[in-house]
Amino acid sequence: MQKNVLIIGAGGVAHVAAHKAAMNNDVLGDICIASRTLSKCDAIIESVLRKGHLKDASRRLYSAQLDALDIPATIKLIQDTQSDIVINLGSAFLNMSILEACIETGVAYIDTAIHEDPDKVCEQPPWYANYEWKRKDSCDAKGVTAILGAGFDPGVVNAYCALAVKRYFDKIDTIDILDVNAGSHGKYFSTNFDPEINFREFVKVWTWIDREWKEYPTHSVKRLYDFPVAGEQPVYLNGHDELHSLSKNIDANSIRFWMGFGDHYINVFTVLRTLGFLSHLPVTLTTGQEVVPLKVVKALLPDPMTLAPGYTGNTCIGNFVKGWKDGKEREVFIYQVSDHKKCYEEVESQGISYTAGVPPVAAAMLIANGTWDVKKMVNVEELDPEPFIEILDRIGLPTEIKEIEPNSAFSFNGFVRPIEEELLESTATVTVSAANPMIALKPAK
Amino acid sequence: MQKNVLIIGAGGVAHVAAHKAAMNNDVLGDICIASRTLSKCDAIIESVLRKGHLKDASRRLYSAQLDALDIPATIKLIQDTQSDIVINLGSAFLNMSILEACIETGVAYIDTAIHEDPDKVCEQPPWYANYEWKRKDSCDAKGVTAILGAGFDPGVVNAYCALAVKRYFDKIDTIDILDVNAGSHGKYFSTNFDPEINFREFVKVWTWIDREWKEYPTHSVKRLYDFPVAGEQPVYLNGHDELHSLSKNIDANSIRFWMGFGDHYINVFTVLRTLGFLSHLPVTLTTGQEVVPLKVVKALLPDPMTLAPGYTGNTCIGNFVKGWKDGKEREVFIYQVSDHKKCYEEVESQGISYTAGVPPVAAAMLIANGTWDVKKMVNVEELDPEPFIEILDRIGLPTEIKEIEPNSAFSFNGFVRPIEEELLESTATVTVSAANPMIALKPAK
Repeated sequence: MQKNVLIIGAGGVAHVAAHKAAMNNDVLGDICIASRTLSKCDAIIESVLRKGHLKDASRRLYSAQLDALDIPATIKLIQDTQSDIVINLGSAFLNMSILEACIETGVAYIDTAIHEDPDKVCEQPPWYANYEWKRKDSCDAKGVTAILGAGFDPGVVNAYCALAVKRYFDKIDTIDILDVNAGSHGKYFSTNFDPEINFREFVKVWTWIDREWKEYPTHSVKRLYDFPVAGEQPVYLNGHDELHSLSKNIDANSIRFWMGFGDHYINVFTVLRTLGFLSHLPVTLTTGQEVVPLKVVKALLPDPMTLAPGYTGNTCIGNFVKGWKDGKEREVFIYQVSDHKKCYEEVESQGISYTAGVPPVAAAMLIANGTWDVKKMVNVEELDPEPFIEILDRIGLPTEIKEIEPNSAFSFNGFVRPIEEELLESTATVTVSAANPMIALKPAK
Repeated sequence: MQKNVLIIGAGGVAHVAAHKAAMNNDVLGDICIASRTLSKCDAIIESVLRKGHLKDASRRLYSAQLDALDIPATIKLIQDTQSDIVINLGSAFLNMSILEACIETGVAYIDTAIHEDPDKVCEQPPWYANYEWKRKDSCDAKGVTAILGAGFDPGVVNAYCALAVKRYFDKIDTIDILDVNAGSHGKYFSTNFDPEINFREFVKVWTWIDREWKEYPTHSVKRLYDFPVAGEQPVYLNGHDELHSLSKNIDANSIRFWMGFGDHYINVFTVLRTLGFLSHLPVTLTTGQEVVPLKVVKALLPDPMTLAPGYTGNTCIGNFVKGWKDGKEREVFIYQVSDHKKCYEEVESQGISYTAGVPPVAAAMLIANGTWDVKKMVNVEELDPEPFIEILDRIGLPTEIKEIEPNSAFSFNGFVRPIEEELLESTATVTVSAANPMIALKPAK
């Protein structure tokens, strides 16, 4: 049975999701794209039509204006559009109000990132417990399917964890989620998605080590790894959404997230952060204006939507899993490679938006066909990963799996020494905050 | 005869000038310090008293609140305080209104930087012709002494040019004004005076070469020079106020200004400038606020006033002059070295404020004793330099003069090749603007 979809948001990820939903509207039905700025929704629809991506032309693809912080307005739009599934791809500040509207109307909810409070950053882990999970009982009681974090990371990487448990390991020691973008957008500096959300990820690092939350300074632990297709890339220990559910749902000693950054990115980021430009707290100008520096950064950086046409190179995101199977050590790298240029040719978007925008549509298709229509709130790793990975294989994000010789040159080595030693040898410039006085760091070399 | 002084401004330079004026109040009389923020004036007075610097305790040292853009209010304050000399050390945006108040009341005027319009940067040269010189006839007609640019640079370096003409050369080929701060303030990044004014100096480079104005990209020509005391330092071709009067008043083929910057400064500056943070033009945030990025930079950087206590190292500012005397080639370096720590010990200020704040007081003393009370508008190089340099020797800024073997290893080499070649070999990252398409630059190495 077809299920009507309401996509909320009109940024780069929503753009990709709209294309993919239209390309699968024989499963999904009518598609409405809603955001504060109607013209951005209409620009997406133009792109879908330009590419001839509306598979079943008898179904509608249309736009609506919506302030998604307004719960009654969102409820009304869900009802007016007769939507069955809401894919929330708006700002992470909107999650809780959109979720509330879905619970009220009894329709399915999908998002791709954890809710954020504009006034708080990097709160106490696990982050899901601060917001979404507080509504778990309501979803379960009303039989509302709510799939949290169904982008790529969080999302597909959570399914890779479930796949590792289901098919490859009896017991898992470590999972290292590696996310590199070895692409080039040709700009001096840009984030690949909303800088206001992006930079909030780098305030500090919460990571799951030896079944405990540990906090580290940003960019203080660095590794080099030779990625399939993307080649050798530097990655840094980083905090990330998915750790905040995987730590609860996946039986592993350590689950860590690593993000790739080039030296130029680290340099620009370090300048901006050290000077205070990445702060979400307002400063007072000599004019008397109260200004949030991070919002000025957002205004000055390129709009991530504009990066797509000239973007070249590849992304590689995957899980390096170490553990035991049938009494023997095992290492497996489960990953996905995307090509920015191919993404643009297909849907007029760059690879970062593509990898984040395709999975929630796959999730919606699995709700529509009943496979994932679980009538409760779940994170992706709680669901059967194989139907998800199978759809992704078909609709643009094929998964590769590599068996690695344990403890070989092809292994990814997380922490090979005690963390304090790792930090001391870091080449990154780190600032120890008052909130994190536990680690005395040497100055950068 | 004693002359009462009104100091307008309460920043770092005004702080030093107040100390020096108090230390010489047997010549200068009563001293009033006026600014928008009365508490800043009072903090300066406290510092002067703490150091026991009020030489003649029978004369007043007091404060007043003043918005110096308000010409009638400034006129009233000049009259109320019975001031004879106004030393304008406020923002460069205030020059024309303060000058107007001095012309109206017939009192002497001294400043240390060219007037700036908040909405314009790096206007057509010579900059003095856009503002101050338009009031020259009025000053001359009313017999008002107005000494423009009487800080260190502009100011003392202009007097060094006049000294070179008077004592050392029959004919001058090139004057290279070199300004290095080889000090360390211990902060990640800071400007040494108001960042809003400071960064406006680096938008583009106007320089006087072969008796013509030439425009170049910022930080595109670099030299190393081994300075007295300060040691070997990198300097970059830069625009600066004094070139805009020296080009008219000093008979030399080329007059250039070079400023010292370390690699870290260049890096941070390049990041901020390239991303647009140094712009004086407002951007619109997603909140709808209109914000001038440079004002956010000012709010986030350290207050230059706070740098003084821990500042170590030296400044060296001087003129490297090449030409001919008695038919022979001659090279002379006329310079001044200041020690940040000694400046702090003496007047609780760092060396940059010190070198800028002492000279206008010396100029005021020369007006008070009649030597420089010329009853017209002049730039410093139009006055006899020797009494000025003699007072500076006594009150904290002793001048040194070095005879250099012409074309030796101790020569400063400005442009040794055609400028286009210099630019091409530059290691700095430069941006050629639409306004400056004449130079095709290779990417940075």
